[in-house]
Amino acid sequence: MDNFTFYSPTYFVFGKGKENETGHYVRRFGGSKVLIHYGGGSVVRSGLLDRVKASLDKEGISYIELGGVKPNPRSGLVYQGIELCKKEGVDFVLAVGGGSTIDSSKAIAMGAVYDGDFWDFYAGRAAAERALPVASVLTIAAAGSEGSDGSVITNEDGMYKRPYGSEVIRPVFAVMNPELTMTLPPYQTASGCTDIMAHVFERYFTNTRNVEITDRFCEAVLKTIIKELPKVLEDPNDYEARANIMWAGTMAHNDICGVGREQDWASHNLEHELSALYDCAHGAGLAVMFPAWMTYVMPHDVNRFAQFAVRVWGCEMDFEHPEETAKEGIARTKAFFHSIGMPTSFAELGAKEEDIPKLLDTLQIDGRTEGFFVKLGRKECEEVYRLACR
Amino acid sequence: MDNFTFYSPTYFVFGKGKENETGHYVRRFGGSKVLIHYGGGSVVRSGLLDRVKASLDKEGISYIELGGVKPNPRSGLVYQGIELCKKEGVDFVLAVGGGSTIDSSKAIAMGAVYDGDFWDFYAGRAAAERALPVASVLTIAAAGSEGSDGSVITNEDGMYKRPYGSEVIRPVFAVMNPELTMTLPPYQTASGCTDIMAHVFERYFTNTRNVEITDRFCEAVLKTIIKELPKVLEDPNDYEARANIMWAGTMAHNDICGVGREQDWASHNLEHELSALYDCAHGAGLAVMFPAWMTYVMPHDVNRFAQFAVRVWGCEMDFEHPEETAKEGIARTKAFFHSIGMPTSFAELGAKEEDIPKLLDTLQIDGRTEGFFVKLGRKECEEVYRLACR
Repeated sequence: MDNFTFYSPTYFVFGKGKENETGHYVRRFGGSKVLIHYGGGSVVRSGLLDRVKASLDKEGISYIELGGVKPNPRSGLVYQGIELCKKEGVDFVLAVGGGSTIDSSKAIAMGAVYDGDFWDFYAGRAAAERALPVASVLTIAAAGSEGSDGSVITNEDGMYKRPYGSEVIRPVFAVMNPELTMTLPPYQTASGCTDIMAHVFERYFTNTRNVEITDRFCEAVLKTIIKELPKVLEDPNDYEARANIMWAGTMAHNDICGVGREQDWASHNLEHELSALYDCAHGAGLAVMFPAWMTYVMPHDVNRFAQFAVRVWGCEMDFEHPEETAKEGIARTKAFFHSIGMPTSFAELGAKEEDIPKLLDTLQIDGRTEGFFVKLGRKECEEVYRLACR
Repeated sequence: MDNFTFYSPTYFVFGKGKENETGHYVRRFGGSKVLIHYGGGSVVRSGLLDRVKASLDKEGISYIELGGVKPNPRSGLVYQGIELCKKEGVDFVLAVGGGSTIDSSKAIAMGAVYDGDFWDFYAGRAAAERALPVASVLTIAAAGSEGSDGSVITNEDGMYKRPYGSEVIRPVFAVMNPELTMTLPPYQTASGCTDIMAHVFERYFTNTRNVEITDRFCEAVLKTIIKELPKVLEDPNDYEARANIMWAGTMAHNDICGVGREQDWASHNLEHELSALYDCAHGAGLAVMFPAWMTYVMPHDVNRFAQFAVRVWGCEMDFEHPEETAKEGIARTKAFFHSIGMPTSFAELGAKEEDIPKLLDTLQIDGRTEGFFVKLGRKECEEVYRLACR
C-alpha cells in the first residue's frame, strides 16, 4: 500500500426535504452573501430554486444569482461569475445542480480570490492557494463533485476540457435529497451511473498490490450501482434505489475508493476530448471509452480483470483460462452499459472514426503519456480510440 | 434508507514514517501549546515519543506530557489532565497511543473548556458544546477512535464504563503508520481486530431495509480483516496486511459503515460491563459477547444472518433451510475468533456466571432496554449473558 493522505471534510446532509435546511448550513459555514449558481430551467421549474432561496431568506442571508451552466461547463460563464463575485462582495458560492454546476462554482470560487486568470489553475500554470467556500444542493448522482476536490472546465478558446484538483475547493457541505433526482430522464440517470462506475474503474485498475480494503470498497460501489440502477430505470420514483445510487456516487469520487494506490485516469482524459468535440454526455462518452480501454490493457494484468469479473459481475473463475474470465468481465461491463441505454461505440455516440487525429491533437498527447496502469502514448491512445469504433 | 448526516473531517496521514510529520500537522491545525497524552512505557521504550517530540520541537511548538493511560481509561487521569490543561494554558491535546489514550484525550479536551464536571457528558447530564482540538498518533488498529466522534471512560467511583459521542471531539488529524503496530503482541492485535469487526456488526444487523451501499461497505471491512489478520498473526512484520487492517479499523468506526440505518450497540454495552468488572481487553469481551448475541437475535431476521453468512463468510446458501446458513455464519464467526486466540466464553475470558446479576446491576438495565435490532430488557440481557457462558 502506498502512503496517502485522506481528507474529506464535507458535511453531508442526506435525505428527504433536506434542501429546506440549506440556509442553516450556509450560515453554519460562514456564508453571508451568496452566489447561487445553477444551470437551465429545471431547477426553476421544479420549484427547487425557490425552496433554496426561501431557506436563505429564513436565515437572513442575502444572495445573487447566476444561471446558465451547461453540461461540460464553459470558461465564459466562469469569468462572468468571478466578475460578479468581485463586484458584489460575495463570500460563499452555492451550486444548485449537478457536477457541471458544482465544477463551475468551484472555478468561480477560486477565481474570485485570485488576481490572475483562473485558467492558470487548469492549464497547470499555478496552484490555487485559497477559494471562497463552496457548497451544493445536488440534483444528479454522477460526477461526485459534491464531495471531491476536483473540477473540470472547458475553455471555449479552442474547446480544451481540463481538470483541476485542490483541497481548497472541497465543498464545505452538500445537501443530497434523492427525491430531487426522480425527474431525471432515463438517459441522464444512466449516464450519471456510468460516470460513477467509471470513477471506480479509474481507481480499481492499478499496479499497486495488496490494497484489499480499497478493492473491496470499489467493488461495493460497483455492485450497488449494478443492483440499484435497473430498479430506477424500471421505476424512476424508487426512493431507496435512488438513495443508494446517490450516496454511491459520492463514495465513488471522494477518494475513499482510491487511497493507498496508483490511479489511472487515461479513459477520463480520452473521453474529455469526445465530450469537448461532440458535446455528448460525459457518462455516455465513458461508456464508449471504458470497454475499449479495458480490452486494450487487459493483457497487462489478466488476474486483476479476472478478479473484477468474479467479484463484481459474479462470473465463475475459469482456472484453466483466466483470460477467458477476464474477457467475460469486460463483455459483461459492455453489455450492462448497453442494457441501460448507453452507447458503446463511436457510431452509437455520434462520433466519427475520421476525427481520431483531431481528438489526438486536442489531447496534446505528443511527447507524453496518458494513464498509469498502462502508459499510453499517441499510438496507444489511437488504438484505444480505434477499438472504441467497433 | 433513513435520513442522515455524515461528517468525517479528520485529516488522515497514512504511511511509513509519518509520525515525524506530527509537528507540521499540529501547526496546521492551530496548536501552539500541546498536552501529549500517552499510556505505558512502550511508546517511550520504542522511541516513538521522542520522535513525536522532535517533530514538535522542529516546529517550535511547546508541550507538556501526561502518561499513564490504562486500557479501559479511568476518570481519575482525565481529571488530572483537565487540571493540567487549565493550569498550563494548553490549546491542543495530542494522543500518542491507541483507543484508550485517544478516548482519554477526548475527555480531557472537553473538560478543559467546561466549567462543570466532565462526567456530566458521559452521564447524559450535559452536551459538550466545544473542546480543545484533539489529534492522535495511532499505535494500534482497534477502537477507531482516531476518526470517530466517540469516547468511552470508566468512572472509578463505582467502575461504570460509559460512552459519549459528539462532533466536537472528532480528531482534527490522525497520523497512522502501520509499522508502529508491528510490535504488538498477537493477543492485542487479535483483540483489536475483534473490536473492528464488532464495530461493523453493530451497524450491519439493522432493521432498516434497502441500504445496499452501507451493507457492502460493512462486508468490505469484515472481509478485509478476515483475509489480512491471519497473515499478521503468521508474520507480525507484514506491512501490507498491517496497513489494510489499520485503515479498515478507521473505516469501521467513522460511520461510513453505518449511515442511513438504525444501529444496534447492545453487545458493546453488555461488554462494557465485562471489561469494567474484569478489566479484560475490550476486544476479548466482544469475542465472547457477539456470538452469544447473534445466537439470541438470529431468529428475528434469519435472512439477514444468511446474507452475512454468504457474503462475508462465503457460505453456500441453503435455500431450503435458510436458518442453517444463518447458523453457519454465526458458527464461522465464533470459530474465527477462536482461531485468532480470542476467548469465546465466560470461562475462557475469566468471567463468572454467578456475576451475571452484578453485571446486570451495573448495566442499570431496569426499566429500559439495550439495542435496536432486538430490544433487550433485563431478562433478555441475562439470557445473552447466559449464552455467553456456554
